Amino acid sequence: MVDFGAVFAGKPVLITGGLGFIGSNLAHRLVELGAVVTIVDALFPDCGGNWFNIAGIEDRVEVHVLDIQDEAALGRLVREKAFLFNLAGRVSHLDSMRNPYADLESNVRGHLSVLEACRRHNPEVKIVHAGTRQVYGRPCYLPVDESHPPNPVDINGVNKLAGELYHIVYHRAYGLRTASLRLTNTYGPRMWVRDSRLTFIGWWIRRVVEGQELEIFGDGRQIRDFNYVDDVVEALLLAAANPVAEGQIYNLGGEPISLLDLARLLVEVNGGGSYRLVPFPPERNRIDIGDFCGDSTRIRDQLGWRPRVSLREGLARTLAYYREYHRYYW
Amino acid sequence: MVDFGAVFAGKPVLITGGLGFIGSNLAHRLVELGAVVTIVDALFPDCGGNWFNIAGIEDRVEVHVLDIQDEAALGRLVREKAFLFNLAGRVSHLDSMRNPYADLESNVRGHLSVLEACRRHNPEVKIVHAGTRQVYGRPCYLPVDESHPPNPVDINGVNKLAGELYHIVYHRAYGLRTASLRLTNTYGPRMWVRDSRLTFIGWWIRRVVEGQELEIFGDGRQIRDFNYVDDVVEALLLAAANPVAEGQIYNLGGEPISLLDLARLLVEVNGGGSYRLVPFPPERNRIDIGDFCGDSTRIRDQLGWRPRVSLREGLARTLAYYREYHRYYW
Repeated sequence: MVDFGAVFAGKPVLITGGLGFIGSNLAHRLVELGAVVTIVDALFPDCGGNWFNIAGIEDRVEVHVLDIQDEAALGRLVREKAFLFNLAGRVSHLDSMRNPYADLESNVRGHLSVLEACRRHNPEVKIVHAGTRQVYGRPCYLPVDESHPPNPVDINGVNKLAGELYHIVYHRAYGLRTASLRLTNTYGPRMWVRDSRLTFIGWWIRRVVEGQELEIFGDGRQIRDFNYVDDVVEALLLAAANPVAEGQIYNLGGEPISLLDLARLLVEVNGGGSYRLVPFPPERNRIDIGDFCGDSTRIRDQLGWRPRVSLREGLARTLAYYREYHRYYW
Repeated sequence: MVDFGAVFAGKPVLITGGLGFIGSNLAHRLVELGAVVTIVDALFPDCGGNWFNIAGIEDRVEVHVLDIQDEAALGRLVREKAFLFNLAGRVSHLDSMRNPYADLESNVRGHLSVLEACRRHNPEVKIVHAGTRQVYGRPCYLPVDESHPPNPVDINGVNKLAGELYHIVYHRAYGLRTASLRLTNTYGPRMWVRDSRLTFIGWWIRRVVEGQELEIFGDGRQIRDFNYVDDVVEALLLAAANPVAEGQIYNLGGEPISLLDLARLLVEVNGGGSYRLVPFPPERNRIDIGDFCGDSTRIRDQLGWRPRVSLREGLARTLAYYREYHRYYW
């Protein structure tokens, strides 16, 4: 067990995308651990940033509303930081096809800007990047390990891959202390639930809370795997704390489940609800990846990561959160 | 044998980067085949564009000095074209580390712009993209086939990968008729020989023509493979002519040779000259890829490509060209 208190207490930490889903959960955890947290977030509309996500810690974090493409401003903020969690970015596959340039600016140019700022102003900072299983595209085999060739099916996947590879290039060429985690479907409190653009599970959670029917695309047999956000936060902290992670890429991965079974479980945990199968919308069908589940052996072996929150438990906590705070999210 | 005359005669063809090395050689060949050639080139300083490259065909091609990032202008030019050879881009590994944003703009944003222009204005055009073996980085095995994981060591490699993957995404999502060739070291008439930024072999050719000593970095045992430009042009035409290539990526590849043996051969073909070993400059060392040679079985099997010009013959032709026309190149 890593003593996170010893690693992070009193340490200056920068979180890009810190008003978003994962970034804000990480901020809560780091504040709890005694870290001195600074948040950068562009608050782009519809990208997940939400002031309520830092409710309860708003007086203990410093927030800069700033696009990470502003390398000069970022340069001032990265100085003196011990850790940088680079979570800013756009995650919508559909949006990336509708406006590929915006996705490029954030996920490619923005991440280059973060790395350039660190190279110039703080080459010692430990950087953990949030990558995505979307870089693999439609899997050639399951579960997908890190050797699986990247073969993204949409612009977001290409751009997230480029942003991640920059981190590895800057490690090799300049010795920057970077690591990247390839996240799979992450869910939990503070996620985007306003529509289904960023993640379908957030939308399902909202529908269930509102007493609406869930729509499952296709036959519902598609497999996905899920991580509760606290487990993802744990992985980010482990990657930051362990020098073994430098220059490395790690898959996360969770319990594989069909979408039909997930819908059933969600309805069951909720204590009521319904779902139905609907045909795949064409714009989604053409960028769908089929079944996916990730092999997380590498991060388990090298960093000792273990997801601790079961899907049932995680869904229960998430539903409880949105029942209480839905007015801040839709 | 493909009858290129039947495929290209009378056909409207757009070449991005058409004043550069490979683009201009392709333009000469297409004019010879009776195609109606339009060239787009930004003529960025130090990127290889040169008006002399189209000497002899300047009255038979239409040239637009234009950045491919200008999607609106490009949109007007792609209309009605039957083929688009997408060769614009920056190729210098060193420059990409010194100015990563410029490399990003050209190789990532620029290629997205080309694809968006085609998607909107001419989704039927056949598009062949010039990729690079640089996407593989330092090889895990030799010869490198297309299944080798991409692992670029510099910004240029990351950006070229992203630009290439966009082409594949646009094929799958929108049915665009794209193909990408991953070029290895290409040499021949009209290449950049002003300095060693774009390719070392161009610089060596200039040094030999000028009677200067060649400098070989390291111990000279590094393996590279080379294609004479006419063979690369042949591959581009094959990929454009054959529907089998749509949505596909193909390696090119040539005779593997150590840099020491290449220097010896060049001096021999030149009828005189000298070389010496010098230490690797640090900025090159940190992005060096070690030995490389590509496996081109796939394009040989699927498209019938055969490189025809031996290294000895190709070097002889290249030296003859620069002896005659050096005043236009340095």
